[in-house]
Amino acid sequence: MADIDLDDYIRKVKDFPKPGILFYDVTGILAAPEAFRFCIDRMVALYKDKNIEAVASIESRGFIFAAAFADRLGIPQILIRKKGKLPGKVIRKEYALEYGTSEIEIQEVDIPKGRRVLLADDLFATGGTFRAAHDILVEGGALVPEVFGVIGLPFLHYDKQLPGIPVTTLINYNNE
Amino acid sequence: MADIDLDDYIRKVKDFPKPGILFYDVTGILAAPEAFRFCIDRMVALYKDKNIEAVASIESRGFIFAAAFADRLGIPQILIRKKGKLPGKVIRKEYALEYGTSEIEIQEVDIPKGRRVLLADDLFATGGTFRAAHDILVEGGALVPEVFGVIGLPFLHYDKQLPGIPVTTLINYNNE
Repeated sequence: MADIDLDDYIRKVKDFPKPGILFYDVTGILAAPEAFRFCIDRMVALYKDKNIEAVASIESRGFIFAAAFADRLGIPQILIRKKGKLPGKVIRKEYALEYGTSEIEIQEVDIPKGRRVLLADDLFATGGTFRAAHDILVEGGALVPEVFGVIGLPFLHYDKQLPGIPVTTLINYNNE
Repeated sequence: MADIDLDDYIRKVKDFPKPGILFYDVTGILAAPEAFRFCIDRMVALYKDKNIEAVASIESRGFIFAAAFADRLGIPQILIRKKGKLPGKVIRKEYALEYGTSEIEIQEVDIPKGRRVLLADDLFATGGTFRAAHDILVEGGALVPEVFGVIGLPFLHYDKQLPGIPVTTLINYNNE
């Protein structure tokens, strides 16, 4: 595996999407094949021996990492999307944002009941979204033994959302 | 390559997202590893000898196919997103929808100038979005020699949008 420092590929953008927020932009990883390959290699190394039977990812940057991971392992992908984008019977979950609330949905037919699902996204901050994503999967009958993110912002305490479930990230930033 | 009929995996949902629309749902492909692998195998077979130097995909289902394709070939990924989701300097393009308009954006820094970029999405209908995506890439200095979609709806005439550029799909539906 190549020796990669992901920090070299993550652009930091001040005041995006709003004033006071420092945005960690993963598109620099996507633009650099060696960095993207490093992330997927790491995901495969972390989870290939953990009997992961499907990967669920969160709209929309999470889809990108999950898709390549699923292709490598030959496992199903489950999409967790914003409200109104998935047809058919869905399970919906409302969750709190910094201001107001948002809703995510999953197609009931695609939830692998009783199976071990890796939940993946690009970045974890407060963890509100991944907590809701976890809950929706579990309500649908799946098991969520592991959670994966490329970037973690532990000062926003995402790690407090899912006690007992390992949350693995490839790089963390602690600057508030 | 396994003998797969993609039609078996594409769910058809009436009246989604609004009355009168028959929605072709690719999430059934994502849920079936053999079908997803078939799509990516086909993409690789179609383009591996065409000197494709990057893949650009359209939010958000397009990201999924492009990500696995990029991982297989070791090429950069470029995201084409809805307005307001990408930080930094962007190129923006407004385009017509059936009712009203929409806008897409691309990060200027990520456009590979003078390079051959495959434009990929999950489904082509009127082609308005992929025409705008093509134009934004070309304005940014990239070449777009090929366009790929998993599903085509040729009765909506997407093929009229980009004369002279090959548009390849894996399955077409002609029922109006």
